[in-house]
Amino acid sequence: MPILYSYWRSSASYRVRIGLALKGIRFETVPVSLIDGEQAGADYASINPQKVLPALRLDDGRVLTQSLAILEYLDEAFPQHPLLPADPFERAKVRAFSAVIASDTHPIQNLSVLKYLRASFDQDDDGVAVWARHWIGRGLETLEPIAAASEGDFIFGDEPGLAEVCLIPQLYNAARFKVELDRFPALVAIDAACAELPAFRSAAPQTQPDTP
Amino acid sequence: MPILYSYWRSSASYRVRIGLALKGIRFETVPVSLIDGEQAGADYASINPQKVLPALRLDDGRVLTQSLAILEYLDEAFPQHPLLPADPFERAKVRAFSAVIASDTHPIQNLSVLKYLRASFDQDDDGVAVWARHWIGRGLETLEPIAAASEGDFIFGDEPGLAEVCLIPQLYNAARFKVELDRFPALVAIDAACAELPAFRSAAPQTQPDTP
Repeated sequence: MPILYSYWRSSASYRVRIGLALKGIRFETVPVSLIDGEQAGADYASINPQKVLPALRLDDGRVLTQSLAILEYLDEAFPQHPLLPADPFERAKVRAFSAVIASDTHPIQNLSVLKYLRASFDQDDDGVAVWARHWIGRGLETLEPIAAASEGDFIFGDEPGLAEVCLIPQLYNAARFKVELDRFPALVAIDAACAELPAFRSAAPQTQPDTP
Repeated sequence: MPILYSYWRSSASYRVRIGLALKGIRFETVPVSLIDGEQAGADYASINPQKVLPALRLDDGRVLTQSLAILEYLDEAFPQHPLLPADPFERAKVRAFSAVIASDTHPIQNLSVLKYLRASFDQDDDGVAVWARHWIGRGLETLEPIAAASEGDFIFGDEPGLAEVCLIPQLYNAARFKVELDRFPALVAIDAACAELPAFRSAAPQTQPDTP
Protein backbone atom coordinates (compact mmCIF):
# COMPACT_ATOMS: atom_id res chain seq x y z
CA MET A 1 0.00 0.00 0.00
CA PRO A 2 1.42 3.48 -0.81
CA ILE A 3 2.52 5.58 2.16
CA LEU A 4 1.67 9.28 2.29
CA TYR A 5 3.90 11.41 4.50
CA SER A 6 1.47 14.05 5.60
CA TYR A 7 0.63 16.69 8.19
CA TRP A 8 -3.01 17.28 9.01
CA ARG A 9 -2.91 21.02 8.34
CA SER A 10 -0.43 21.00 5.43
CA SER A 11 -2.17 22.39 2.39
CA ALA A 12 -0.02 20.43 -0.07
CA SER A 13 -0.59 17.17 1.86
CA TYR A 14 -4.32 17.89 1.88
CA ARG A 15 -4.29 18.19 -1.93
CA VAL A 16 -2.73 14.76 -2.35
CA ARG A 17 -5.11 13.23 0.21
CA ILE A 18 -8.05 14.47 -1.87
CA GLY A 19 -6.52 13.19 -5.11
CA LEU A 20 -5.89 9.73 -3.68
CA ALA A 21 -9.39 9.59 -2.22
CA LEU A 22 -11.07 10.74 -5.46
CA LYS A 23 -9.31 7.92 -7.26
CA GLY A 24 -10.18 5.41 -4.56
CA ILE A 25 -6.53 4.56 -3.91
CA ARG A 26 -6.03 3.11 -0.43
CA PHE A 27 -2.94 4.43 1.34
CA GLU A 28 -1.30 4.56 4.73
CA THR A 29 -0.73 7.94 6.36
CA VAL A 30 2.55 8.55 8.16
CA PRO A 31 2.26 11.84 10.04
CA VAL A 32 5.22 14.23 9.97
CA SER A 33 4.74 17.09 12.41
CA LEU A 34 5.52 20.47 10.89
CA ILE A 35 4.93 22.15 14.23
CA ASP A 36 7.60 19.94 15.85
CA GLY A 37 9.95 20.36 12.87
CA GLU A 38 9.96 16.65 12.05
CA GLN A 39 10.16 17.43 8.34
CA ALA A 40 13.72 18.72 8.93
CA GLY A 41 14.83 15.61 10.84
CA ALA A 42 17.09 12.89 9.45
CA ASP A 43 14.30 10.31 9.19
CA TYR A 44 12.16 12.37 6.87
CA ALA A 45 15.11 13.92 5.01
CA SER A 46 16.06 10.39 3.94
CA ILE A 47 12.60 10.16 2.31
CA ASN A 48 12.48 13.68 0.86
CA PRO A 49 15.77 15.61 0.90
CA GLN A 50 13.83 18.85 0.28
CA LYS A 51 12.38 18.42 3.79
CA VAL A 52 8.91 19.54 2.77
CA LEU A 53 5.60 17.72 2.73
CA PRO A 54 4.10 15.73 1.22
CA ALA A 55 5.92 12.68 -0.13
CA LEU A 56 4.28 9.56 -1.53
CA ARG A 57 6.14 6.26 -1.24
CA LEU A 58 4.96 3.79 -3.87
CA ASP A 59 4.71 0.04 -3.25
CA ASP A 60 8.05 -0.51 -4.97
CA GLY A 61 9.79 1.95 -2.63
CA ARG A 62 10.15 4.81 -5.10
CA VAL A 63 9.24 8.19 -3.67
CA LEU A 64 7.34 11.03 -5.33
CA THR A 65 7.48 14.63 -4.07
CA GLN A 66 5.76 17.95 -4.80
CA SER A 67 1.98 17.81 -4.59
CA LEU A 68 1.22 18.81 -8.19
CA ALA A 69 3.78 16.37 -9.60
CA ILE A 70 2.25 13.63 -7.43
CA LEU A 71 -1.26 14.49 -8.62
CA GLU A 72 -0.22 14.49 -12.29
CA TYR A 73 1.44 11.12 -11.68
CA LEU A 74 -1.71 9.74 -10.09
CA ASP A 75 -3.74 10.95 -13.05
CA GLU A 76 -1.40 9.23 -15.50
CA ALA A 77 -0.97 5.98 -13.56
CA PHE A 78 -4.55 5.60 -12.27
CA PRO A 79 -7.07 6.51 -14.96
CA GLN A 80 -10.18 6.20 -12.77
CA HIS A 81 -11.85 9.54 -11.88
CA PRO A 82 -9.65 11.77 -14.09
CA LEU A 83 -8.39 14.91 -12.36
CA LEU A 84 -7.90 16.62 -15.73
CA PRO A 85 -10.15 16.69 -18.82
CA ALA A 86 -9.04 14.98 -22.04
CA ASP A 87 -8.69 17.98 -24.37
CA PRO A 88 -5.29 19.77 -24.21
CA PHE A 89 -6.77 23.28 -24.09
CA GLU A 90 -9.27 22.31 -21.39
CA ARG A 91 -6.45 20.64 -19.44
CA ALA A 92 -4.48 23.88 -19.67
CA LYS A 93 -7.42 25.84 -18.24
CA VAL A 94 -7.66 23.51 -15.23
CA ARG A 95 -3.89 23.57 -14.74
CA ALA A 96 -3.84 27.38 -14.93
CA PHE A 97 -6.56 27.62 -12.27
CA SER A 98 -4.58 25.22 -10.09
CA ALA A 99 -1.35 27.16 -10.65
CA VAL A 100 -2.93 30.38 -9.40
CA ILE A 101 -3.14 28.56 -6.08
CA ALA A 102 -0.11 26.29 -6.15
CA SER A 103 2.31 28.88 -7.55
CA ASP A 104 0.87 32.36 -7.06
CA THR A 105 -0.90 32.09 -3.71
CA HIS A 106 -0.08 29.26 -1.35
CA PRO A 107 3.76 29.45 -1.43
CA ILE A 108 3.67 33.11 -0.37
CA GLN A 109 1.55 32.36 2.72
CA ASN A 110 3.28 29.09 3.54
CA LEU A 111 4.60 28.38 7.04
CA SER A 112 8.27 28.92 6.12
CA VAL A 113 7.55 32.40 4.74
CA LEU A 114 5.49 33.36 7.79
CA LYS A 115 8.33 32.16 10.05
CA TYR A 116 10.75 34.35 8.12
CA LEU A 117 8.45 37.37 8.51
CA ARG A 118 8.32 36.77 12.28
CA ALA A 119 12.09 36.38 12.58
CA SER A 120 13.32 39.07 10.18
CA PHE A 121 10.53 41.65 10.17
CA ASP A 122 9.40 41.19 13.77
CA GLN A 123 5.84 40.25 12.81
CA ASP A 124 3.44 38.79 15.38
CA ASP A 125 0.33 36.65 14.77
CA ASP A 126 -1.63 39.65 13.55
CA GLY A 127 1.18 40.79 11.28
CA VAL A 128 1.53 37.45 9.52
CA ALA A 129 -2.26 37.17 9.24
CA VAL A 130 -2.40 40.52 7.41
CA TRP A 131 0.25 39.22 5.00
CA ALA A 132 -1.53 35.90 4.48
CA ARG A 133 -4.90 37.59 3.93
CA HIS A 134 -3.40 39.90 1.32
CA TRP A 135 -1.99 37.11 -0.85
CA ILE A 136 -4.87 34.69 -0.35
CA GLY A 137 -7.37 37.44 -1.18
CA ARG A 138 -5.47 38.29 -4.34
CA GLY A 139 -5.49 34.66 -5.47
CA LEU A 140 -9.17 34.13 -4.74
CA GLU A 141 -10.07 37.35 -6.58
CA THR A 142 -8.55 35.80 -9.70
CA LEU A 143 -10.40 32.53 -9.24
CA GLU A 144 -13.88 33.76 -8.26
CA PRO A 145 -14.95 34.90 -11.77
CA ILE A 146 -13.75 31.60 -13.24
CA ALA A 147 -15.85 29.63 -10.76
CA ALA A 148 -18.78 32.02 -11.24
CA ALA A 149 -18.72 31.40 -15.00
CA SER A 150 -18.99 27.62 -14.58
CA GLU A 151 -22.09 26.02 -16.05
CA GLY A 152 -21.50 22.71 -14.28
CA ASP A 153 -21.80 21.53 -10.69
CA PHE A 154 -18.09 22.12 -10.16
CA ILE A 155 -15.57 24.57 -11.61
CA PHE A 156 -14.83 22.74 -14.85
CA GLY A 157 -17.78 20.44 -15.36
CA ASP A 158 -19.90 18.15 -13.25
CA GLU A 159 -17.12 16.35 -11.36
CA PRO A 160 -14.44 17.74 -9.07
CA GLY A 161 -10.88 17.52 -10.35
CA LEU A 162 -7.50 19.18 -9.97
CA ALA A 163 -9.06 22.65 -9.61
CA GLU A 164 -11.08 21.58 -6.56
CA VAL A 165 -8.14 19.53 -5.23
CA CYS A 166 -6.17 22.80 -5.03
CA LEU A 167 -9.03 25.15 -4.14
CA ILE A 168 -10.45 23.42 -1.07
CA PRO A 169 -7.17 23.41 0.95
CA GLN A 170 -6.63 27.04 -0.03
CA LEU A 171 -10.10 27.94 1.26
CA TYR A 172 -9.28 26.10 4.48
CA ASN A 173 -6.24 28.36 4.86
CA ALA A 174 -8.33 31.38 3.94
CA ALA A 175 -10.72 30.64 6.81
CA ARG A 176 -7.81 30.05 9.16
CA PHE A 177 -6.41 33.50 8.41
CA LYS A 178 -9.89 35.06 8.52
CA VAL A 179 -10.14 36.10 4.89
CA GLU A 180 -13.57 37.68 4.28
CA LEU A 181 -15.11 34.85 2.25
CA ASP A 182 -18.41 36.62 1.50
CA ARG A 183 -16.56 38.25 -1.39
CA PHE A 184 -16.23 34.86 -3.09
CA PRO A 185 -19.71 33.32 -3.29
CA ALA A 186 -18.96 31.03 -6.25
CA LEU A 187 -15.87 29.59 -4.54
CA VAL A 188 -17.77 29.15 -1.27
CA ALA A 189 -20.50 27.27 -3.16
CA ILE A 190 -17.88 24.90 -4.62
CA ASP A 191 -16.47 24.41 -1.12
CA ALA A 192 -19.93 23.45 0.16
CA ALA A 193 -20.49 21.03 -2.73
CA CYS A 194 -17.13 19.33 -2.09
CA ALA A 195 -17.83 19.09 1.64
CA GLU A 196 -20.71 16.73 0.76
CA LEU A 197 -18.37 14.23 -0.92
CA PRO A 198 -16.72 11.36 1.01
CA ALA A 199 -13.36 11.90 -0.77
CA PHE A 200 -13.12 15.49 0.47
CA ARG A 201 -14.36 14.56 3.95
CA SER A 202 -11.80 11.81 4.39
CA ALA A 203 -9.01 14.17 3.31
CA ALA A 204 -10.01 17.09 5.53
CA PRO A 205 -7.63 18.35 8.23
CA GLN A 206 -10.28 17.62 10.87
CA THR A 207 -10.22 13.86 10.18
CA GLN A 208 -6.54 12.94 10.01
CA PRO A 209 -4.70 10.49 12.29
CA ASP A 210 -2.54 13.36 13.60
CA THR A 211 -5.34 15.88 14.05
CA PRO A 212 -4.97 17.17 17.62
CA MET B 1 1.09 32.75 -35.67
CA PRO B 2 0.69 32.47 -31.86
CA ILE B 3 1.26 35.67 -29.89
CA LEU B 4 3.25 35.61 -26.66
CA TYR B 5 2.58 38.47 -24.26
CA SER B 6 5.94 38.79 -22.62
CA TYR B 7 8.33 41.02 -20.69
CA TRP B 8 12.03 40.64 -21.33
CA ARG B 9 12.95 40.11 -17.69
CA SER B 10 9.84 38.16 -16.60
CA SER B 11 10.94 34.75 -15.44
CA ALA B 12 7.65 33.07 -16.34
CA SER B 13 7.68 34.65 -19.83
CA TYR B 14 11.27 33.48 -20.26
CA ARG B 15 10.21 29.88 -19.51
CA VAL B 16 7.57 29.92 -22.22
CA ARG B 17 9.97 31.55 -24.70
CA ILE B 18 12.39 28.66 -24.14
CA GLY B 19 9.65 26.06 -24.50
CA LEU B 20 8.39 27.54 -27.76
CA ALA B 21 11.93 27.79 -29.12
CA LEU B 22 12.85 24.20 -28.14
CA LYS B 23 9.81 23.01 -30.06
CA GLY B 24 10.60 25.23 -33.03
CA ILE B 25 7.24 27.01 -32.83
CA ARG B 26 7.38 30.42 -34.48
CA PHE B 27 5.57 33.12 -32.52
CA GLU B 28 5.14 36.86 -32.34
CA THR B 29 6.19 38.66 -29.16
CA VAL B 30 3.98 41.44 -27.83
CA PRO B 31 5.85 43.18 -25.03
CA VAL B 32 3.94 44.13 -21.87
CA SER B 33 6.03 46.33 -19.61
CA LEU B 34 5.96 45.23 -15.99
CA ILE B 35 8.03 48.22 -14.98
CA ASP B 36 5.41 50.56 -16.47
CA GLY B 37 2.54 48.52 -15.01
CA GLU B 38 1.09 47.68 -18.43
CA GLN B 39 0.05 44.23 -17.15
CA ALA B 40 -2.55 45.98 -14.96
CA GLY B 41 -3.99 48.08 -17.80
CA ALA B 42 -7.30 47.44 -19.53
CA ASP B 43 -5.70 46.23 -22.77
CA TYR B 44 -3.82 43.39 -21.18
CA ALA B 45 -6.52 42.61 -18.61
CA SER B 46 -8.82 41.83 -21.52
CA ILE B 47 -6.28 39.18 -22.58
CA ASN B 48 -5.48 37.84 -19.11
CA PRO B 49 -7.79 38.99 -16.31
CA GLN B 50 -5.21 37.85 -13.73
CA LYS B 51 -2.99 40.67 -15.00
CA VAL B 52 0.18 38.61 -14.86
CA LEU B 53 2.56 37.48 -17.57
CA PRO B 54 2.82 35.51 -19.72
CA ALA B 55 -0.21 34.76 -21.88
CA LEU B 56 -0.15 32.85 -25.15
CA ARG B 57 -2.80 33.65 -27.77
CA LEU B 58 -3.30 30.75 -30.14
CA ASP B 59 -4.09 31.15 -33.83
CA ASP B 60 -7.80 30.57 -33.15
CA GLY B 61 -7.86 33.41 -30.59
CA ARG B 62 -8.02 31.25 -27.48
CA VAL B 63 -5.68 32.39 -24.72
CA LEU B 64 -3.56 30.26 -22.38
CA THR B 65 -2.16 31.59 -19.10
CA GLN B 66 0.24 30.40 -16.37
CA SER B 67 3.66 29.38 -17.66
CA LEU B 68 3.58 25.76 -16.49
CA ALA B 69 0.07 25.20 -17.87
CA ILE B 70 1.21 26.69 -21.18
CA LEU B 71 4.30 24.46 -21.27
CA GLU B 72 2.26 21.33 -20.51
CA TYR B 73 -0.13 22.36 -23.28
CA LEU B 74 2.72 22.82 -25.73
CA ASP B 75 4.04 19.39 -24.83
CA GLU B 76 0.66 17.79 -25.45
CA ALA B 77 -0.19 19.71 -28.63
CA PHE B 78 3.29 19.75 -30.23
CA PRO B 79 5.05 16.41 -29.79
CA GLN B 80 8.40 17.48 -31.27
CA HIS B 81 11.25 17.86 -28.72
CA PRO B 82 9.31 16.52 -25.68
CA LEU B 83 9.72 18.63 -22.55
CA LEU B 84 8.82 15.64 -20.37
CA PRO B 85 9.95 12.00 -20.60
CA ALA B 86 7.45 9.26 -21.49
CA ASP B 87 7.41 7.24 -18.25
CA PRO B 88 4.97 8.53 -15.57
CA PHE B 89 7.47 8.24 -12.70
CA GLU B 90 10.20 9.98 -14.70
CA ARG B 91 7.71 12.67 -15.67
CA ALA B 92 6.92 13.17 -11.99
CA LYS B 93 10.62 13.63 -11.19
CA VAL B 94 10.98 16.34 -13.83
CA ARG B 95 7.75 18.02 -12.71
CA ALA B 96 8.87 17.94 -9.06
CA PHE B 97 12.19 19.59 -9.99
CA SER B 98 10.28 22.24 -11.94
CA ALA B 99 7.85 22.80 -9.07
CA VAL B 100 10.68 23.53 -6.64
CA ILE B 101 11.28 26.57 -8.84
CA ALA B 102 7.79 27.43 -10.09
CA SER B 103 6.04 26.95 -6.73
CA ASP B 104 8.60 27.03 -3.91
CA THR B 105 11.11 29.60 -5.13
CA HIS B 106 10.16 32.04 -7.85
CA PRO B 107 6.75 33.21 -6.51
CA ILE B 108 8.33 34.27 -3.21
CA GLN B 109 10.92 36.49 -4.92
CA ASN B 110 8.55 37.74 -7.59
CA LEU B 111 8.18 41.47 -8.30
CA SER B 112 4.79 41.78 -6.59
CA VAL B 113 6.14 40.33 -3.34
CA LEU B 114 9.21 42.56 -3.42
CA LYS B 115 6.97 45.59 -3.99
CA TYR B 116 4.91 44.60 -0.95
CA LEU B 117 8.07 44.29 1.17
CA ARG B 118 9.12 47.78 0.10
CA ALA B 119 5.70 49.29 0.82
CA SER B 120 4.75 47.46 4.03
CA PHE B 121 8.09 46.63 5.65
CA ASP B 122 10.02 49.64 4.43
CA GLN B 123 12.63 47.57 2.61
CA ASP B 124 15.08 49.18 0.19
CA ASP B 125 17.00 47.56 -2.70
CA ASP B 126 19.37 45.85 -0.29
CA GLY B 127 16.53 44.62 1.90
CA VAL B 128 14.61 43.01 -0.93
CA ALA B 129 17.83 41.52 -2.31
CA VAL B 130 18.49 39.80 1.05
CA TRP B 131 14.98 38.36 0.92
CA ALA B 132 15.35 37.22 -2.71
CA ARG B 133 18.75 35.65 -2.04
CA HIS B 134 17.37 33.71 0.91
CA TRP B 135 14.55 32.07 -1.05
CA ILE B 136 16.51 31.55 -4.26
CA GLY B 137 19.40 30.02 -2.30
CA ARG B 138 17.03 27.66 -0.53
CA GLY B 139 15.53 26.50 -3.82
CA LEU B 140 18.88 26.01 -5.54
CA GLU B 141 20.19 24.04 -2.52
CA THR B 142 17.38 21.55 -3.15
CA LEU B 143 18.12 21.32 -6.85
CA GLU B 144 21.94 21.15 -6.84
CA PRO B 145 22.21 17.50 -5.66
CA ILE B 146 19.65 16.43 -8.24
CA ALA B 147 21.63 18.05 -11.04
CA ALA B 148 24.89 16.71 -9.59
CA ALA B 149 23.51 13.16 -9.70
CA SER B 150 22.68 13.38 -13.41
CA GLU B 151 24.51 10.96 -15.66
CA GLY B 152 23.44 12.76 -18.85
CA ASP B 153 24.41 16.03 -20.48
CA PHE B 154 21.41 17.75 -18.89
CA ILE B 155 19.50 17.23 -15.64
CA PHE B 156 17.29 14.37 -16.75
CA GLY B 157 19.06 12.89 -19.74
CA ASP B 158 20.85 14.14 -22.81
CA GLU B 159 18.34 16.77 -23.91
CA PRO B 160 17.06 19.86 -22.08
CA GLY B 161 13.39 19.77 -21.06
CA LEU B 162 11.00 21.27 -18.53
CA ALA B 163 13.63 21.20 -15.77
CA GLU B 164 16.01 23.41 -17.75
CA VAL B 165 13.11 25.56 -18.98
CA CYS B 166 12.45 26.45 -15.33
CA LEU B 167 16.04 26.44 -14.06
CA ILE B 168 17.68 28.84 -16.50
CA PRO B 169 15.34 31.80 -15.78
CA GLN B 170 15.73 31.13 -12.05
CA LEU B 171 19.53 31.25 -12.40
CA TYR B 172 19.16 34.53 -14.30
CA ASN B 173 17.26 35.90 -11.30
CA ALA B 174 19.85 34.43 -8.95
CA ALA B 175 22.60 36.35 -10.71
CA ARG B 176 20.52 39.51 -10.70
CA PHE B 177 20.14 39.33 -6.92
CA LYS B 178 23.80 38.34 -6.49
CA VAL B 179 23.27 34.83 -5.15
CA GLU B 180 26.68 33.19 -4.59
CA LEU B 181 26.53 30.70 -7.47
CA ASP B 182 29.85 28.97 -6.70
CA ARG B 183 27.87 26.86 -4.24
CA PHE B 184 25.94 25.29 -7.13
CA PRO B 185 28.51 23.96 -9.62
CA ALA B 186 26.23 21.35 -11.19
CA LEU B 187 23.51 23.93 -11.84
CA VAL B 188 26.04 26.40 -13.23
CA ALA B 189 27.33 23.69 -15.60
CA ILE B 190 23.78 23.11 -16.88
CA ASP B 191 23.39 26.86 -17.35
CA ALA B 192 26.57 26.93 -19.45
CA ALA B 193 25.42 23.97 -21.55
CA CYS B 194 22.06 25.63 -22.23
CA ALA B 195 23.73 28.91 -23.14
CA GLU B 196 25.28 27.12 -26.12
CA LEU B 197 21.89 26.22 -27.57
CA PRO B 198 20.05 28.52 -30.04
CA ALA B 199 16.68 27.92 -28.30
CA PHE B 200 17.98 29.27 -25.01
CA ARG B 201 19.85 32.13 -26.67
CA SER B 202 16.79 33.32 -28.57
CA ALA B 203 14.73 33.24 -25.37
CA ALA B 204 17.22 35.09 -23.17
CA PRO B 205 16.30 38.45 -21.60
CA GLN B 206 19.24 40.05 -23.40
CA THR B 207 17.78 39.35 -26.87
CA GLN B 208 14.10 40.36 -26.61
CA PRO B 209 12.35 43.06 -28.67
CA ASP B 210 11.72 45.04 -25.46
CA THR B 211 15.20 44.62 -23.96
CA PRO B 212 16.31 48.15 -23.08
